[in-house]
Amino acid sequence: MTTALRQFVYANELSFLMEAHDALSASIAAKVGFKGLWASGLSISSTLGYRDTNEASWTELVDAVERIADASNLPVLVDGDSGFGNFNNARLVSHKLWRRGAAGVCLEDKGFPKMNSFVGDRHPLAEIKEFCGRLSAVKDTIPDREFVLVARLEALIAGRDLDEALVRADAYAEAGADAILIHSRKADADEILEFAQQWRNKKPVLIVPTKYYRTPTAQFRDAGISTIIWANHNMRASVSAMRDVCSQILEEESLVNIESEVAGLGEVFDLLRYAELSEAEAKYLPKSHAS
Amino acid sequence: MTTALRQFVYANELSFLMEAHDALSASIAAKVGFKGLWASGLSISSTLGYRDTNEASWTELVDAVERIADASNLPVLVDGDSGFGNFNNARLVSHKLWRRGAAGVCLEDKGFPKMNSFVGDRHPLAEIKEFCGRLSAVKDTIPDREFVLVARLEALIAGRDLDEALVRADAYAEAGADAILIHSRKADADEILEFAQQWRNKKPVLIVPTKYYRTPTAQFRDAGISTIIWANHNMRASVSAMRDVCSQILEEESLVNIESEVAGLGEVFDLLRYAELSEAEAKYLPKSHAS
Amino acid sequence: MTTALRQFVYANELSFLMEAHDALSASIAAKVGFKGLWASGLSISSTLGYRDTNEASWTELVDAVERIADASNLPVLVDGDSGFGNFNNARLVSHKLWRRGAAGVCLEDKGFPKMNSFVGDRHPLAEIKEFCGRLSAVKDTIPDREFVLVARLEALIAGRDLDEALVRADAYAEAGADAILIHSRKADADEILEFAQQWRNKKPVLIVPTKYYRTPTAQFRDAGISTIIWANHNMRASVSAMRDVCSQILEEESLVNIESEVAGLGEVFDLLRYAELSEAEAKYLPKSHAS
Amino acid sequence: MTTALRQFVYANELSFLMEAHDALSASIAAKVGFKGLWASGLSISSTLGYRDTNEASWTELVDAVERIADASNLPVLVDGDSGFGNFNNARLVSHKLWRRGAAGVCLEDKGFPKMNSFVGDRHPLAEIKEFCGRLSAVKDTIPDREFVLVARLEALIAGRDLDEALVRADAYAEAGADAILIHSRKADADEILEFAQQWRNKKPVLIVPTKYYRTPTAQFRDAGISTIIWANHNMRASVSAMRDVCSQILEEESLVNIESEVAGLGEVFDLLRYAELSEAEAKYLPKSHAS
Repeated sequence: MTTALRQFVYANELSFLMEAHDALSASIAAKVGFKGLWASGLSISSTLGYRDTNEASWTELVDAVERIADASNLPVLVDGDSGFGNFNNARLVSHKLWRRGAAGVCLEDKGFPKMNSFVGDRHPLAEIKEFCGRLSAVKDTIPDREFVLVARLEALIAGRDLDEALVRADAYAEAGADAILIHSRKADADEILEFAQQWRNKKPVLIVPTKYYRTPTAQFRDAGISTIIWANHNMRASVSAMRDVCSQILEEESLVNIESEVAGLGEVFDLLRYAELSEAEAKYLPKSHAS
Repeated sequence: MTTALRQFVYANELSFLMEAHDALSASIAAKVGFKGLWASGLSISSTLGYRDTNEASWTELVDAVERIADASNLPVLVDGDSGFGNFNNARLVSHKLWRRGAAGVCLEDKGFPKMNSFVGDRHPLAEIKEFCGRLSAVKDTIPDREFVLVARLEALIAGRDLDEALVRADAYAEAGADAILIHSRKADADEILEFAQQWRNKKPVLIVPTKYYRTPTAQFRDAGISTIIWANHNMRASVSAMRDVCSQILEEESLVNIESEVAGLGEVFDLLRYAELSEAEAKYLPKSHAS
Repeated sequence: MTTALRQFVYANELSFLMEAHDALSASIAAKVGFKGLWASGLSISSTLGYRDTNEASWTELVDAVERIADASNLPVLVDGDSGFGNFNNARLVSHKLWRRGAAGVCLEDKGFPKMNSFVGDRHPLAEIKEFCGRLSAVKDTIPDREFVLVARLEALIAGRDLDEALVRADAYAEAGADAILIHSRKADADEILEFAQQWRNKKPVLIVPTKYYRTPTAQFRDAGISTIIWANHNMRASVSAMRDVCSQILEEESLVNIESEVAGLGEVFDLLRYAELSEAEAKYLPKSHAS
Repeated sequence: MTTALRQFVYANELSFLMEAHDALSASIAAKVGFKGLWASGLSISSTLGYRDTNEASWTELVDAVERIADASNLPVLVDGDSGFGNFNNARLVSHKLWRRGAAGVCLEDKGFPKMNSFVGDRHPLAEIKEFCGRLSAVKDTIPDREFVLVARLEALIAGRDLDEALVRADAYAEAGADAILIHSRKADADEILEFAQQWRNKKPVLIVPTKYYRTPTAQFRDAGISTIIWANHNMRASVSAMRDVCSQILEEESLVNIESEVAGLGEVFDLLRYAELSEAEAKYLPKSHAS
């Protein structure tokens, strides 16, 4: 899986990672045809009832990622936030993520706890040297050299200029990052595209067009972007669907108009491979056996 | 919460429990206006990547239920399957569910592992006396007398007749069940309504009209049913929504037609109460503080 | 339990808390006769294979504490380190600890991750105002007013003087701390006793004489200390016992000289209440039942 | 690790597995010099506060085993009880144990929940064919062919005769067991030795001399036994040590006579490799960095 993700990120063509937050979303994304997943901190936190400011513990993240990896059988890049503390926490969580099936981790240059990049204006950046220590520690700790370490730049989120982003990107690449995720919360992709132009793919670039979703994908392809992350859309699709179905059932006190709108049980059973279980029962469980 | 669920189930009017499987679905159901939740074994299993045949461990169920209860602040009736083993397992899991915030548990008269009632024909029933032992043990173990113990009858699922269902219902009520869930997988509600007629509400009756969803709710109201469980529709709405959004993004390689279809980030932040966090920061975190 | 711990800490006589790190150590301490427990971060970390520098996640701590509380049926004061992040993490972990059965939490005035107070010289203190924010947030979040919040002063560990310790103690008490833990790693208790003298019990004082164990307890009693924490001695007794038994078995390749040295199975079964299970089987499990 | 355990069990000379129940006991056994570990169900259950009758969930076992494997870096044979249900549960737990670092699993031919073999007389055996299904399912599921599957015979515990034990051993070997554990709770080893003689090492034999500890190890060596499991002695050494230290501290209200009896903090820090952390700080953490 680590090799698969590495090829994915280093490929000459644009790649896509779909968000997953639990086994069900992961298995759906795999079944539909995605080739790689993004284990989103925001989405995982939301399903657990937490805000995206490091309320979820690092072991809760690890457990969620294990389920995503197991259910999808796809390479999973994990949103590791800022590494859950200092270099020691960062290497501990990254190593465990790798052991549980993650193919890569993305660490952002903030402190702990970090706040979701789309919320508020309190986004202090980590000191460059200290963050490089986190990256190096992770790189040195994981024996699998194919494991993908992505450094996420929050300079633009924090209101810093492009120059600072480029200086940091250089430092992070030197410290061992395999790729750079440049993040922005503007409605257009200008600063992203300018970064890409000046960075000239010294390392592959990943982007998250949650806010600048109107920019045509062709522009990212032309700019030599490596990978686009569709960062939270499975979770957000679930939210609207559940909000609507709850409202309708509450009002109508009936399922009669719901049944055709929601996935049939057969689709659920198919996703979870119930047929395999029947076959296995026939093979391993004596017919006489009571339960 | 236990008292709230008890009043719910014992009320003279028909009540409804909406399925939840994680904190997000629970908070949505609460926000939309449901007054009680059903922590579905099928749905929770599915989000964890398990089949509904006791693959999920009892502690994984407990952890999921805790999140559902915390996120919703609603009374939660938990699908406890067959109790995860014998009387000792049943009382252990029920007691821990109560400690983690559940308001009631529903136990079905099968063995361990049980199979989802809609799958296959291997649904051996528990011996009446042994199952009554499970019910009594749960009842005797939980100090909160308001905690609601529901006995779920699988006789009709197992192909037994109405007489057996009624004999069992009597035994279970005597053993300590506060209410009876009569389950059916027929496309019409005839056997459910006949059970209700003959049972004459010796204890409140809960039903799960997943398969006989075409029967008008008025019929259940007339029959004196206590509570209808909408048992898996949040999960199934998620599945279809995620399947569709994955397909569309995979094909279009763009979010531009997605953004208006899925919940906005603002709705997600609202569900998780990010505003409370901002207020708390203003109150507890010095402005000078770095992160 | 919260009321019990509060009375314990506020009592006019000297009280003692014994360290526990899992259900077994907790049940032993309870059986021997201790009236309250200290859920030690160092000990819990050690049994989980972590260093005492916030490698263990906050949810791993919560799970360990739940087992300690359940097994002992005693009031448990939890070593909450520095609160696992900022005010928001501190209130989150404290609230969950309370929900899982803790009677109080002790927070120390360091950053995250903190390092064990007996290791190295990197012990930067938190800013007073920021740490007071953590204390207030915890106090405001937990609805049970009896829950005991202890503020642990690391000033002496960090090489600061007594004046700073006293200034901080005042600030922490005002921010809502119910008691003060003054920590020292000197071989004598001079600085502890001087603190106690000058503090004059504005709030009860807890101490941890791990390093100054030679000071007679009478001196602490005379000084008006509220509570002594025997902070890690169950864990350390286990380590030496396991190291010795492993060495002997490895060398002798036999249990013959071991059997009388270690607890009998009967003692283990007694601690875990196997007799209760037999009685319950007789009551709830039909004799005919296979397993 | 799986290869290491396989060589261990298949070696021509007698091997020994030491019990471990958490990271601390595992690291001690490794440091003292043991070459393989037994993750004991009784011991793990006890530290979690459970009776050894499948109160601990299968995921709690998995989590404990992961810590044991991580802390020791030794091959770990896991006490998998009866497989936590039917063939499907058995393969699920075994596969996950393997993924989390176990080198082998031992399954016993009882139902679920099973009771500790030294407690009571209710030890119904599984049907041979059904138990063989569990073994085959485990064998077919784990892709690593070196993973060691041990079938544990409870026939003698259940009061059956040697012939039944031998018939079952043959069936289990044919179903895929790599080795046989023959269990006994008699004070002498006669039935064990007779089994070994008649079985003639068709597959390696493991034994657990907890009750027949007086039999000299030389006799087992002569009988061609493959592996002796010292099944619960780390846990039992802990219990007596903690009981004694608690009693003494409670009575003396002082540590002064305790300090030299328990492991020093230095030994604990050494076991957990605190020195490595200091070195890593020097390498990865800028000196200026606050915490």
